[in-house]
Amino acid sequence: MSAAERYLQMNARELRLELEELYAAYAACLDEERFEDWPDFFIDDCTYKIIPRENFERDLPLATWFCENKGGLLDRVVAIRKTMMYAPRYVRRLVSSIRILGWNGNTLAARANYLALETLLDEPTRLFNCGQYRDQLVVAGDRLRFKEKLCIFDSLLVPNSLIYPL
Amino acid sequence: MSAAERYLQMNARELRLELEELYAAYAACLDEERFEDWPDFFIDDCTYKIIPRENFERDLPLATWFCENKGGLLDRVVAIRKTMMYAPRYVRRLVSSIRILGWNGNTLAARANYLALETLLDEPTRLFNCGQYRDQLVVAGDRLRFKEKLCIFDSLLVPNSLIYPL
Amino acid sequence: MSAAERYLQMNARELRLELEELYAAYAACLDEERFEDWPDFFIDDCTYKIIPRENFERDLPLATWFCENKGGLLDRVVAIRKTMMYAPRYVRRLVSSIRILGWNGNTLAARANYLALETLLDEPTRLFNCGQYRDQLVVAGDRLRFKEKLCIFDSLLVPNSLIYPL
Repeated sequence: MSAAERYLQMNARELRLELEELYAAYAACLDEERFEDWPDFFIDDCTYKIIPRENFERDLPLATWFCENKGGLLDRVVAIRKTMMYAPRYVRRLVSSIRILGWNGNTLAARANYLALETLLDEPTRLFNCGQYRDQLVVAGDRLRFKEKLCIFDSLLVPNSLIYPL
Repeated sequence: MSAAERYLQMNARELRLELEELYAAYAACLDEERFEDWPDFFIDDCTYKIIPRENFERDLPLATWFCENKGGLLDRVVAIRKTMMYAPRYVRRLVSSIRILGWNGNTLAARANYLALETLLDEPTRLFNCGQYRDQLVVAGDRLRFKEKLCIFDSLLVPNSLIYPL
Repeated sequence: MSAAERYLQMNARELRLELEELYAAYAACLDEERFEDWPDFFIDDCTYKIIPRENFERDLPLATWFCENKGGLLDRVVAIRKTMMYAPRYVRRLVSSIRILGWNGNTLAARANYLALETLLDEPTRLFNCGQYRDQLVVAGDRLRFKEKLCIFDSLLVPNSLIYPL
């Protein structure tokens, strides 16, 4: 049986546990600043967007970040490591309320809530950004990867220091 | 086998996954502002309270919100949609540490922690309210629904803008 | 089959559910202020540390709290109940992104993110501390207990009011 068949045959409980593990691994990858590993959670032909909820709900296209393929993600990693200037900080992500909306052909739709907390040097931890992940996943290379990941954040203010991915 | 029998025969792991899905669906219903769907998470003869932890621990009856049946929940929805005046806002709920205390006859006791985050127009996201859910669930209409839901919040300050349910 | 054998033979999904239950019980024990039950989550020969992330990453030994066995945990409980003076407060913990790194002999490595929220009398709830648990667990007395628990927190500021455990 192929990996894709194995995933397609999982029942709702097995799939929930798979996604809990995937989202935990995703958050840890970013929280632990292993940014080079981050693009591997995506397929090559992926979409990654960070977009204000108001824009999303009004179908306005403007996104704060927009990567239209894996190359765009890799560019972000280079920017983090080499080209951007920014104050050192830790970001920690809490993920909650994972929901599986089901398969559409070979694509699995899932949603979850996230909260990102930011800590700058010598400052207390503060709320950075919260919102909803709206994701499309496919099986590629024996595991589930993101085909599309939308990070739809609640605050209408565009964070002026969106350095690391969500 | 009836739905009630099916739930009663689930082992602890199956039940945990059922509740994780239920709490995720509950949070999403409210976060996505599908308030009309919210009363369906409850049976007709339900109790819903939002109560400060200090009052709860001292057995003081005063609750910030108190609905003594499903009609009370429906009234809340009408208030949100039609009669209340309030500044537009997004509320997002994170649920964590779901615990199953077990069956007492046909009633399942469960607890969880919640954190509600609020975002007003043109303002950054802020902590709104956190506390513990103490819930009693029964099987009705083929699924688990709340017979009693207590939202016991930590801050002694009564939030002056408790517009949406928790 | 011994309890240890039973745990060692669990598959990844079963183990994830065990840990979700354990972390939920751990958080509830502390959130509900049942501090006398807290040391029972550990074996006698345990290590418990609360340490700033910067110190941890630089291999600096300085920890904000350091208990080198269960007796140290019991001392903390006595301090909370009898010897420390502090303003009354509620602390609530959210745990997220539990990850199982696997068995090394009879020791299970796991990680998770936590967020602690603090509410002082007549004040709104505030962010208190967030970070990562890095834990080593063993089976003792028929269940998983902590052999080592590191609470590695993001803010470089040492909280001046670290009264309750994390």
